[in-house]
Amino acid sequence: MKREKGLLIVLSGPSGVGKGTVCGALRKHDTHIKYSVSATTRKPREGEAEGVNYFFKSHEEFQRMIRENELLEYAQYVDNFYGTPRNYVEEMIASGRDVILEIEVQGALQVKETFPEGVFIFLMPPSLKELRSRIEGRGTETKDLIDNRMTVARDEIDLMDKYDYVVENDEVEAAVERIKSIVTAENCKKERLIHLYKELVEE
Amino acid sequence: MKREKGLLIVLSGPSGVGKGTVCGALRKHDTHIKYSVSATTRKPREGEAEGVNYFFKSHEEFQRMIRENELLEYAQYVDNFYGTPRNYVEEMIASGRDVILEIEVQGALQVKETFPEGVFIFLMPPSLKELRSRIEGRGTETKDLIDNRMTVARDEIDLMDKYDYVVENDEVEAAVERIKSIVTAENCKKERLIHLYKELVEE
Repeated sequence: MKREKGLLIVLSGPSGVGKGTVCGALRKHDTHIKYSVSATTRKPREGEAEGVNYFFKSHEEFQRMIRENELLEYAQYVDNFYGTPRNYVEEMIASGRDVILEIEVQGALQVKETFPEGVFIFLMPPSLKELRSRIEGRGTETKDLIDNRMTVARDEIDLMDKYDYVVENDEVEAAVERIKSIVTAENCKKERLIHLYKELVEE
Repeated sequence: MKREKGLLIVLSGPSGVGKGTVCGALRKHDTHIKYSVSATTRKPREGEAEGVNYFFKSHEEFQRMIRENELLEYAQYVDNFYGTPRNYVEEMIASGRDVILEIEVQGALQVKETFPEGVFIFLMPPSLKELRSRIEGRGTETKDLIDNRMTVARDEIDLMDKYDYVVENDEVEAAVERIKSIVTAENCKKERLIHLYKELVEE
């Protein structure tokens, strides 16, 4: 297949749905997809490497990146900032590579404002009951916190309308296959190809 | 994944591109896709069975089907008529099955008028040179006829804009995988799913 620019694929969905697990499983498949690396102000943990897990930044550097519009999206959690550097994504896409971002729902909507041509995938739990049991399964949170997260999840599911695709995470490998299919199909979209194929006829 | 209605998938493209070969290869894969059977006025050839290869109709029956709007599209070749019965397609879709039609470009555009929500895939040769050599390879046509078919093919490629996807038939199994991916991705489209998933939240 002919191709010109790459795709920006944004994988998002409510907290607890399994975005990280699905993205991790996708990386084990032989695809040509590139994975965006986030910038953060938090300190590296043992085993984390610069440019692999994160780009580690000081608070001053991160604030400068925000001011100079070097981030596609960012958010603050507790005392630290997390964001997606614009540079890497734009370079990959320009060189014809597809890039995937795995981010929270609010961040995905920020990306959509600057990159409306991105492919926005909403990862969905099979049911809210299942989502609750996944969050409970982590065993790190009180009942009140879990109730609160379920309220947030409902609000996030209400934002599904802003996305292009819904992928159910009923089973990790099934979700991975759906995402791979979406990437293949998007690369076959007429809008992305028509001028390349019209050239064939004009030769 | 949840689903409600099935998809109508229309596979088309210039004569000689390999629609029949690709569709035949797709049938050997384990998909849930159903294949539409055409109606025709031509006489059955040896080994052809009613309802498998074609629905065989008299000229009178075929004319009645046209009058009563029982065909999604039809065309005349030499002395015979060929068409796609509407019934089968509508029943399958209503029962949640995906149906594929493999038809000529003009027929596909007729289907689009009644079924704009269908998924229209344009099968494209890697180059016009390659298309010419595939037509020549059949060894059944004179140079004038081949030149004429190439002119028709160029006109048909000009109609690519009416389609949703372009699939290059560079290699049959690669084209089949792309078509399967398109079907999977279309079944994940937000528009088709949002009301089913919104119900989860309202439970």
